[in-house]
Amino acid sequence: MSKSRRVFFLSEIVARLGGELRGEDVEIFEIAPLDQADRQSIAFLSNPKLRPQLQTTAAAAVIVKAADAAGLHCPCIVTPDPYLYFARVTALLHPQPAPVSGIHPSAIIAEDAFVDSGAEIGPQVVIESGVRIGARTVIKAGCVIGADTVIGEDCLFYPRVTVYHNTVIGNRVIIHAGAVIGSDGFGNAWARDHWEKIPQIGRAVVGDDVEIGANTTIDRGALGDTVIASGARLDNMIQIGHNVEIGRFTAIAACSGIAGSTKIGAGCLIGGGVGMSGHLKIADRVTILGGSNVPSSIDEPGVYGGSVTPIMPQGIWRRNAIHYRNLDQLVKRVKVLEKKLGATEEDTDKEEGDKL
Amino acid sequence: MSKSRRVFFLSEIVARLGGELRGEDVEIFEIAPLDQADRQSIAFLSNPKLRPQLQTTAAAAVIVKAADAAGLHCPCIVTPDPYLYFARVTALLHPQPAPVSGIHPSAIIAEDAFVDSGAEIGPQVVIESGVRIGARTVIKAGCVIGADTVIGEDCLFYPRVTVYHNTVIGNRVIIHAGAVIGSDGFGNAWARDHWEKIPQIGRAVVGDDVEIGANTTIDRGALGDTVIASGARLDNMIQIGHNVEIGRFTAIAACSGIAGSTKIGAGCLIGGGVGMSGHLKIADRVTILGGSNVPSSIDEPGVYGGSVTPIMPQGIWRRNAIHYRNLDQLVKRVKVLEKKLGATEEDTDKEEGDKL
Amino acid sequence: MSKSRRVFFLSEIVARLGGELRGEDVEIFEIAPLDQADRQSIAFLSNPKLRPQLQTTAAAAVIVKAADAAGLHCPCIVTPDPYLYFARVTALLHPQPAPVSGIHPSAIIAEDAFVDSGAEIGPQVVIESGVRIGARTVIKAGCVIGADTVIGEDCLFYPRVTVYHNTVIGNRVIIHAGAVIGSDGFGNAWARDHWEKIPQIGRAVVGDDVEIGANTTIDRGALGDTVIASGARLDNMIQIGHNVEIGRFTAIAACSGIAGSTKIGAGCLIGGGVGMSGHLKIADRVTILGGSNVPSSIDEPGVYGGSVTPIMPQGIWRRNAIHYRNLDQLVKRVKVLEKKLGATEEDTDKEEGDKL
Repeated sequence: MSKSRRVFFLSEIVARLGGELRGEDVEIFEIAPLDQADRQSIAFLSNPKLRPQLQTTAAAAVIVKAADAAGLHCPCIVTPDPYLYFARVTALLHPQPAPVSGIHPSAIIAEDAFVDSGAEIGPQVVIESGVRIGARTVIKAGCVIGADTVIGEDCLFYPRVTVYHNTVIGNRVIIHAGAVIGSDGFGNAWARDHWEKIPQIGRAVVGDDVEIGANTTIDRGALGDTVIASGARLDNMIQIGHNVEIGRFTAIAACSGIAGSTKIGAGCLIGGGVGMSGHLKIADRVTILGGSNVPSSIDEPGVYGGSVTPIMPQGIWRRNAIHYRNLDQLVKRVKVLEKKLGATEEDTDKEEGDKL
Repeated sequence: MSKSRRVFFLSEIVARLGGELRGEDVEIFEIAPLDQADRQSIAFLSNPKLRPQLQTTAAAAVIVKAADAAGLHCPCIVTPDPYLYFARVTALLHPQPAPVSGIHPSAIIAEDAFVDSGAEIGPQVVIESGVRIGARTVIKAGCVIGADTVIGEDCLFYPRVTVYHNTVIGNRVIIHAGAVIGSDGFGNAWARDHWEKIPQIGRAVVGDDVEIGANTTIDRGALGDTVIASGARLDNMIQIGHNVEIGRFTAIAACSGIAGSTKIGAGCLIGGGVGMSGHLKIADRVTILGGSNVPSSIDEPGVYGGSVTPIMPQGIWRRNAIHYRNLDQLVKRVKVLEKKLGATEEDTDKEEGDKL
Repeated sequence: MSKSRRVFFLSEIVARLGGELRGEDVEIFEIAPLDQADRQSIAFLSNPKLRPQLQTTAAAAVIVKAADAAGLHCPCIVTPDPYLYFARVTALLHPQPAPVSGIHPSAIIAEDAFVDSGAEIGPQVVIESGVRIGARTVIKAGCVIGADTVIGEDCLFYPRVTVYHNTVIGNRVIIHAGAVIGSDGFGNAWARDHWEKIPQIGRAVVGDDVEIGANTTIDRGALGDTVIASGARLDNMIQIGHNVEIGRFTAIAACSGIAGSTKIGAGCLIGGGVGMSGHLKIADRVTILGGSNVPSSIDEPGVYGGSVTPIMPQGIWRRNAIHYRNLDQLVKRVKVLEKKLGATEEDTDKEEGDKL
């Protein structure tokens, strides 16, 4: 990737990305954090805690909000959203290489599969019968695409992605190595003395502009489809159960698991290591803090947490965990005391909470 | 898979699967939920909450218990277990394609490996020295089977499964894409100033009729074996540590991790995202609710939970988490009050718990 | 592996590994736990709870501390650290096979990649442009090594490992099947009505003598590098976010996730299923109990826990979980009582905690 790095004058960057250039029009070779930037690099300020670094950075230039543009000792680009601007400058300096159209001779392509002539199919890729792959899509080494799957244009599949049969994947979808799309959901019926498998006959359907992380698994529907809506972002090692629906632009951080048939709305932010039970409905614009379990539906937008406690020295942790085991008992003990003293709910309502 | 879908009259279904046909003998093309079924589909009622949908479904026919068979506006099949019947109708309508016996020319098979002539070995599969693969077993694209591993009959390995050397896998085992069977357990001895690896010389042994989900990992034993007993069901992205034993017909949902040497009994149901410590014993017929941690052994059958709290708005979550940190202190405060008031354990025992 | 097993007299073992032989110089074919050893096996005592098994074991010989060497009915090797000695005897009896130097004809190697003539490159491996692979390194079947990546000497990559472009891997590194090194971190900037990807232009850098478990994922840095220091041990299915740093000899058990930019010190022991938030600093020599969430930095060495409660029967679990939801309220109720009774912080400080 470094080979495709480019060099730009600040004025060229502003011409492409907008913003206002203040100061000298210097050349930019790289992008870096404020405290690591050198004379060839542009840096950016998006976290206000790092504002003092504006004075000490060695950067050739900085990307800042208007309010931070005064008194700088280097040129700057002024923009309302320096973080977004940083993303775009990074993409400018480090463009994704263009697909090298063609099929590697070691790839195995079914005769009745359709691969656009502008697509790039890497070594040892396997493409089964009836598959369709769109223009400029890149399928890297060792991916396996199951029968009758349809993949759109401008996608990028990193090595060793597996897509099961009859899956639908939109345009501009990025899938990282080891991800599995369309595997069977966990469907078993108990038959007196053994499990019988419930064939999983639905599909996995992934919209446009989705990114799916390394070793993430997305099960196909049991009946009907599992759906990842357009614009969603899934980090690494996420498990999406059968018939789950993930709304548009919802982002889920790594190691989260969403059990079957749960519907997550649009614009949600799900932290890392979150576990959601099955058959829930999560409203639009819900944020779940990392590590939380979600055992029930959430109807209102907002920020939610659960199941995560502070980290404590082992001795304190152990004592509190045992007290937690006896919490029901403790509540009874307080009730006894309240009765003896005639304390009422009104008393409690009047009491101010601890300042925490 | 859709290509292998078949069509049946209700009378043919009943002839094969049992149950009692009531009403007209119509043709069935598909199976669907009650609320999505159309005039070509059969639907089923297993969740009593959905009973009202029996009156509104557009299904050609429904699968119901005898108690639900009265007053229907369409034909039905009466059976004591509609969910199991649904599983079997699905399998009837969507049969797994038969293996296409033979070895793809791109597969690399060691000279001294034995592959049954009825087995199907997909493209770019690698089969190492001394491996034995039974009749009608399907090994899909890109799987790697390590030296001296034995795989039974009628198995189905989806693409890119890795089985390490010297592993034993029974008959009718399904393994999904990306799963790894027989990898080294986490064994390290501290040698004054560095870790030394403890070679993992045991095996992973998988019984008959097991299903293993996508990207699940099962470590081989350190000394002795890791064992997945016949009939067990493992969902996606489960980690099974070295020398773990999973009992017969035990089902484990996705994202759970079982640490080394823990023995789980037969007929257990382990929810998603469950973490079990090592060296535990879990009795037969134990159910663990999703998201729970299991830090200690469980001797009695039953349903257990732990570590999962309700999901709460962030502010409430934060306050409660801090109070949790101080729970030991709170208990002391209650003890002080009890002493001042002469409240006794008997008082608490007499007190009724809150209705929750 | 069993094919490479060897046989040793106790005197030969002591000559190679040190320790003191007491008793007859018998031949050893295998290593086994005390309760499973037979007359061909050597066993070891490291867990004091198993001491009674010394009297009943059928082992040909045992590895013990000096304090346990008296009164044995079989020969023994005396050593200060029987567990470490066991690791070394295991390695002696079950040596890793030497690399079979050469490149399998089905491997696809870029013309400008450098593969040491003593390296072993397995079937269907893909090695991209500019890669360098050191002496005696073994890359097993189906691995994909991205452009410009550098891999040291004496490494062992199990099948189907993916290493992205521009990654650095030291010497004597073991990586298990399905692991992904150098995948993109989770970087997204919100652009008014959609996410824009932040190109991940840093690297993943893995030191010497590291072991990485099956299906573990290590993201490359966003800017700058993700670093796994020499001597670290990562179990299966661990997620390492972008720009994380893992200190020397730190060991992390399976299913843990470390969010972006967190720095873990040296010599830490992180249990299984631990979730760490991003941007934390964890001191050297910190132990985190399995299942804990770590939402904040830890400045002092020690053993820490959090978020894990005892496992409870469902009814008790449910009641306590609901009380937890109302913990803030309970604390207020206790405050009301304290006011009514004039109880003070001093009273609480004087109160002894429950014996738990």
